[in-house]
Order: sequence, then structure tokens, then C-alpha cells
Amino acid sequence: MRLGMIFRITGALIFFLGLTMIFPLLFSLYYRDGDLWAFILSAAITTGAGAFLFLIFRGTNQEISHREGFVIVALGWASAAFFGSLPYMLAGVFSSFVEAYFEATSGFTTTGATVLAAIEGAPRGILFWRSLTHWLGGMGIIVLSIAILPFLGVGGMQLFKAEVPGPVADKLKPRIAETAKVLWKVYILISGAETLLLMAGGMDLFEALCHTFGTMATGGFSTRNVSIGSYDKAYFDGVIVVFMILAGTNFALHYQALTGNFRAFYRNSEVRFYWATLAGAMLFVTLILRLHIYDTLATAFRYASFQVTSIMTTTGYTTADFEMWPSFVQYTLVVLMFIGGSAGSTGGGMKCVRILLLLKQGRRELSRLIHPHGVIPVRLGGQVVSDGVIQSVWGFFFLFILVFILASVIMSLLGLDIITAFVSVAATINNIGPGLGAVGPMDNYTSIPVIGKWILIFCMLVGRLELYTIIILLVPEFWKR
Amino acid sequence: MRLGMIFRITGALIFFLGLTMIFPLLFSLYYRDGDLWAFILSAAITTGAGAFLFLIFRGTNQEISHREGFVIVALGWASAAFFGSLPYMLAGVFSSFVEAYFEATSGFTTTGATVLAAIEGAPRGILFWRSLTHWLGGMGIIVLSIAILPFLGVGGMQLFKAEVPGPVADKLKPRIAETAKVLWKVYILISGAETLLLMAGGMDLFEALCHTFGTMATGGFSTRNVSIGSYDKAYFDGVIVVFMILAGTNFALHYQALTGNFRAFYRNSEVRFYWATLAGAMLFVTLILRLHIYDTLATAFRYASFQVTSIMTTTGYTTADFEMWPSFVQYTLVVLMFIGGSAGSTGGGMKCVRILLLLKQGRRELSRLIHPHGVIPVRLGGQVVSDGVIQSVWGFFFLFILVFILASVIMSLLGLDIITAFVSVAATINNIGPGLGAVGPMDNYTSIPVIGKWILIFCMLVGRLELYTIIILLVPEFWKR
Repeated sequence: MRLGMIFRITGALIFFLGLTMIFPLLFSLYYRDGDLWAFILSAAITTGAGAFLFLIFRGTNQEISHREGFVIVALGWASAAFFGSLPYMLAGVFSSFVEAYFEATSGFTTTGATVLAAIEGAPRGILFWRSLTHWLGGMGIIVLSIAILPFLGVGGMQLFKAEVPGPVADKLKPRIAETAKVLWKVYILISGAETLLLMAGGMDLFEALCHTFGTMATGGFSTRNVSIGSYDKAYFDGVIVVFMILAGTNFALHYQALTGNFRAFYRNSEVRFYWATLAGAMLFVTLILRLHIYDTLATAFRYASFQVTSIMTTTGYTTADFEMWPSFVQYTLVVLMFIGGSAGSTGGGMKCVRILLLLKQGRRELSRLIHPHGVIPVRLGGQVVSDGVIQSVWGFFFLFILVFILASVIMSLLGLDIITAFVSVAATINNIGPGLGAVGPMDNYTSIPVIGKWILIFCMLVGRLELYTIIILLVPEFWKR
Repeated sequence: MRLGMIFRITGALIFFLGLTMIFPLLFSLYYRDGDLWAFILSAAITTGAGAFLFLIFRGTNQEISHREGFVIVALGWASAAFFGSLPYMLAGVFSSFVEAYFEATSGFTTTGATVLAAIEGAPRGILFWRSLTHWLGGMGIIVLSIAILPFLGVGGMQLFKAEVPGPVADKLKPRIAETAKVLWKVYILISGAETLLLMAGGMDLFEALCHTFGTMATGGFSTRNVSIGSYDKAYFDGVIVVFMILAGTNFALHYQALTGNFRAFYRNSEVRFYWATLAGAMLFVTLILRLHIYDTLATAFRYASFQVTSIMTTTGYTTADFEMWPSFVQYTLVVLMFIGGSAGSTGGGMKCVRILLLLKQGRRELSRLIHPHGVIPVRLGGQVVSDGVIQSVWGFFFLFILVFILASVIMSLLGLDIITAFVSVAATINNIGPGLGAVGPMDNYTSIPVIGKWILIFCMLVGRLELYTIIILLVPEFWKR
């Protein structure tokens, strides 16, 4: 473990993070809401700390090892959230560090769970920073899931080695650089399109950018307390639904589509599963809402499609208080939370490809019982999936459930009711944001006790970094050699 | 598929079931509660139908095939519940067939969920029959899980091929006969001990037998509306706790212990895991109850140990209304529901051995990430577990969760609140009985709508027969050849 190199790389990351604080600083300058100095100081401290780490540690230019990769990823996110919480602290929007760190972690993990009670009262520079942390976190996640995790062999992500765009290189560093360049172009392009469409509908640049960041990262921070619902405009609902679906789709496929290969979407079995599940859930929820809540099919579809897409892509924007909907719909939404978007997107959850693989494996076990001596391979997109990959996915699935149960049992130990304990963990480990109970769509996370906030911070990180990246650091064996 | 042989075997089973109706008939004769004719008729119809099936179908004396095994098991339980519901219908204790069939299925699957609202008002012959169905179901389950499922290769049960007592035979029929003989002796012996101990505490023969049947089968039907709590006697609580723990332990180990090999318990890693989990949960719950509910540690331990054991062994007897306990305790109990007892016992749930294997496999995936090129086997009791077995267990785990989610989503669609929808399925698929919400320890299942009752009947069967035995019959591939 070459700690020097690890700190040097983290330093570079922090330095660039400091530079991005110029954008909210510009909005502070323009709006003069009183948060100007908070950003000047934060940017100075963050770039300074980053430069310091980068310069005092002599980095080697050698290849990053497997184990170092895990440490860099975990440290990267945790320290981004640390420095990202500086503007909140310095602008005085939170009274305690845990709240500032919660909000920053929720931003960078693209969760969107908030402890900011009075959103409309907050300085706009701060609101812009909140949304920007989503967008930056989303950038990180795309590169992490397409370029880094497949090579670390985390939870079945090996499957995607073949799908990485750009020149094939089996070393980690050149691949990250290549992939990042290609995919960030796609990310910026789609984000630009959404911003323009939102402005065309009447949002100003500030609001359009904030909501674009929240959508593209499947984050969910809004500039309004009652989220997208406060605009009450079907046009915005429609635009955001479309871009949430895009944000939850593998960005490697977007890249292929932009090079003219639109069939890439249809040839990808995960995307077919993702869209089919989304469509099925929308249909069911629309029918139930038409029967119990709304007068017309169109209105039912408008609210059903928004909430279903928002939850399944793990965005967390809302246009309706789904806690008032029939328990069947609430239950369906909780199940969708765990499925999540497709791998290689900014969406959270377990990811469609894993659920699809587990379904196929469950189906195979039935076949095996019928034909005990037959060899029945599991295929994905025509390719046979190796037993090693399948076992990685099983391991992921089980550890996910285990961490989920432990975290939610602890939440219940803190005195939360069963539904809030269950759903607060579901909404953070799957990186969604709003849940049910005390953390429902019309509430926020301020009422959660301090220890509970730390547990949920852990859940956001562990869920976002595909579980193993964090859990592995807690195994003593990892640090021995 | 030799349907003739299948019907002949099922006929034999039904015939013997009819003979067992003589026991409740004797209690009806003694107590004269008005249910005598119900038993005379039921016994006549059941033995008659069984004999008819046995005689008109010409059975071959050949070996039973793999696929025929699945059909016999499923048909056996479903038809036992059908004929077992006759006394309820003929005695008029239920107004509809679905309720009678629910009660009979709940009996034979050793679940203990009841739709009998006024237990104290029911004829004692009927109450005895209710409890006897538990005991007979428990007999079936022990043989099923130790002698039959390992050979059908269901969900990792192959692991236990080695543990089957008696002469080793790889053919299904002689093995069933041998194993059944040995294990039923053990079952009857332990049951006799409990009956004597309960009578020594003051129960009459009727009550002692009924509660022994409920305990040994980890069933949970009682002769009183408020279950064991109505006796309010620490002696009974203690005796029943001990026998619930025994009933949830692999009966092949009891057999070995009775032949003098007491170390068999300690050498079995599943039993160590089962007892450790039980002890850990008792400890935690005792502490929480001491803090929040009871004045002394002894009282807290008395109620904690009973409820924890009853839920984890999937018995379902209660001595306290745990819905009044802190949400942490309720949550813990729900988690214990899914773990269940050990394989080869009458306990339900996923079984300790599977959870243990999944934990080991999850741990192995972490090691694999640290040492990507190492070969790391999963061991159980010193033996390397084959990948095929591990995959069976994963398949079981995932299908279990899938069926659970589908069933509980349908329950919520019927208008039940989220907790009742979730826990009613958890309490039936894991064969426990009482749950939370509208099916809490002080309630029963009468308020569940008719379709919901059928769903729960399906859950009880599918959970009790280790999932695959029922699910496989729903796969079209199974019926082709």
C-alpha cells in the first residue's frame, strides 16, 4: 500500500473540487445572498489543502494496484464530502457538522436526502453548490462503474469489461483517463440538452442548471421545498421524466447511440429489462391511481410516471405526496427502490443487471432440479456468464441485504418506528432520498437522531460505492500483507 | 410420470390420515362437545377415499423417479389439508371452505396461523384435531427434510445426505422407510417427555398433548385464545422454551445424542450458529425489555426468551403482546422469522444452515477481492462445500425473497396496510403464525380477505415444502418430456 501515492491522487482530486467552487461563487456574486465569503474561503481552503497533499507526497507514476484502487475510491468520496461540507459550515446554513457532512455526502453520492429544512430561505450559491455536488458525484460514478469497478472485480461488474468504450487497455490508469474523456462528453451533452429544454419551459438559468444536475446524477436536490411539484407544470414533469430515464441508462450505450449505433439499446438485455420494468410499474400504478385518486387517465399517468421513474432511477424528485397513495403503490415504490437503474448509469440501487442475473440463476436452479445431470449455462445477451461472476453477484446481493438489515435494526434501536427505520435505510443505501414515514416525500431527514444520521451517511456511501469498496476496508485481512 | 403410482401412494397416505382421526374421535366421545359425528363421518370419508385410490390404481413396486417425488410431496400435503379440513366443515366451526382449508393447511404445514376466532368455544375434539395436524405435519417434515429433499437436490439440502441416520441406501423408497422409523421413534420419545412434564405442572392430558403437538411441530396452535400466556406460569414457559429449542434442532442429531453421542450437537456448525443466534437475540431483547418494559431482569428474561425462541423456531406460541414492545424488538423478531430453525428439524424459515452458508460465501467474496487469484473454498464443519450446493442455496434464497415480495405486494393490493401485508406473508411463508399489525399476537387471520387467505395458504405450503417442491410444478418444462 503506497500511501504517498494515494494521498497525492486524493490531493489532486480535492484541488479540482476546490476549483469547481468557482461556479457557486459566481452565483453568489450575482445574487448577493450573503454566502460570498463562504465560497471564497471554501475554495481557498480546498484548493490549498489539495495542492498541499499533491505537492508534499511524491507520487510514483506506477500502475495503481488492486488494493490501492479500493482505498482511493473510498477516500475520494469521503474527502470530497468533507471539503464539500465547508461552504455549508461557513455560510452557517447548518448548526452542526454532522448535518453539513450529511448534506454533502447526500450530494456526492447522488442520494438527495436533505437535512435543509427551509430550502427557499437558503442562499442561492449554497443551493447551486448542493446541486453541483450531485453532478460531480454523478461524473465520478459513471467512471467508477464503467472504468474502475469492472477491473477491481466488484459484485459482478466484471461483466462490463467488454462494454467500456475507447481503446482497450488493461491497465487501470490509461483506461480511466480514456473512458472519462469519452463519457464526460456524453454526460455534458445530455445535461446541456436538458438545461436548454428546462429554460425553454420558463426556468431561469439557475433553476434549470440545478434541476439538470439533480436529474442527470439521479440525485434529487431541488431549489424548492416541495420539489418539482411546486412548478405544477406538465411540461417540466415530462422533460424530467425523459432525462431521468436517460440518466438511469448505461452511459456507454449513450456513447454508442451518439456515434450512430442506436440499436445498442435494444441489443442490451439489461436495458430491455430496465425499460420493461419501468413501463410495467408505470402501467400498474397508473391504473391504481386512476381507480383511487385521480379523475382522468392522463393525470394518473402524469403522476404515476413521474414518481415511478423518480424512485426506480433513484432520483427522488417528487410531484405528489405518495404517502397518501394506496399502500400497494407505496409497497411497489419500495420494491423499485432496491432494483434501481442500470449499471454504468448514475442510478443507484442493486442495478437491473444484477436482478436480471439472479432471476436467470433462480430459473436455472429450477431447470437443474428437472434435469439433474444437464449442464445449463446462464446467458446474458447471448454470452455465457461465468460462475465466478454469478458468485460475485450473489455475494453482493446477500451482503447488501445483510448491511441493510443491520443498519435498519440499529435505526429501530434509536427509537424510530418500523417503517421509518426500514425506509430511511432503503432510501439512503439505494441513493434515492425521500422515503416513507418520518422521512416521507413531504418531510426531510432533520428529525433523525445524530447517530442515525451517521448510520445513514454510511449507508449512502456504502450503497453508492457498490458495497464492497467500503466493506472491504473494514476487513482486517485487507490491511495485512 | 406414472400417475397411477402417484395416486396409489397418495391414497395410502390419505388412508392412514383417516385412521388418525380416531384419536380426536376418542376425545369427542369423552367430552361430548357435539363433534362426534363430524369425526365419524370424516374418518369414514377419508379412509374410504384413501382406500379407493390405493385399490383402483395399480402401483408398480418400482423406484420413484425424481420428478414423481416432487409431485407426491406437493400432492401429499395439499390432499392431507383437504381431507384434514373435513372435521372443521362437518362440525360447522367455519362458515366457508377457505377458512377450513386455511386452518388445515396451517396445521399440516406447522404454521399455527388461525382463523378460529373463539378457540375456547370450540369442541375439544376439534381442538385436538387442530393440534394433531401439527404433529403429523411435523412428522412429515422431518422425513421430508432428512430423507427426501437431499435426494431431490432442493436448495442445498444435498448437504445433509451424509447426516441421514440408518443404513445408507441411495434409493429413495428404502431410505424413506428406514429414516422414518428411526426418527419417528425420537420424535415420539421427546414428545412423550414434554407431555409428562406439562402434566406434572398441572395440565390435563388433553391440554398437555395439544401443547406438546404444537411445540414439537413448531406449530403454535393452542387450546386457549391468548396462547400459553393464559396459564401465566413460569414452569410451563420454561418447559415449552426448552422443547421449542429441541424441536428446532436437527432430529438426526437428537438420534445420535440418544445413542450416546452428545458431542454431535457441538460438532455441527449449523446447530452452533442456531444456538448462538438464539442466545444473542435473547440477551439483546432481555436488556431492551428490562430497560423499557419489565422491572426485573428475571421477568424480562422470561418473556424475552419465550418470544424469541417461539419466533425463531417458528412455533408462534406467545406469552406477551410483543406489538407493545419497542420497535427494535419487533424488528428483531421479524428478522428472526426469516432465519428460522435448523434443517432437519420441524422449524420453518430459510433455515440456519443456509444463512450460515450465505454468510460464509459473502465473506469469501471479500477475500476474493483481496486475493483475486486465490482459490478460497467455503467450508462447513470442516468439509468443502461444492459450488453446486452453494448455487442451490443462492437460488433458494433469491426465489424465497422473490415469492415473498410478489405475495406481499398482492396482499397490499388487497388493501392491507404495509406492515400487515409484509408481516402476514412473513409469518406464513416462514410457518410461524402470529405476526404484526392486523395479524399480531392478539389477533388472528379472520380479517384477511378471501383472496388473501388463498395467497397465504399458498405461502404456507411453498414455505414449508422448501419452495422448489411447489414452484417447480408451476414450470411448464417440468411437465414436458
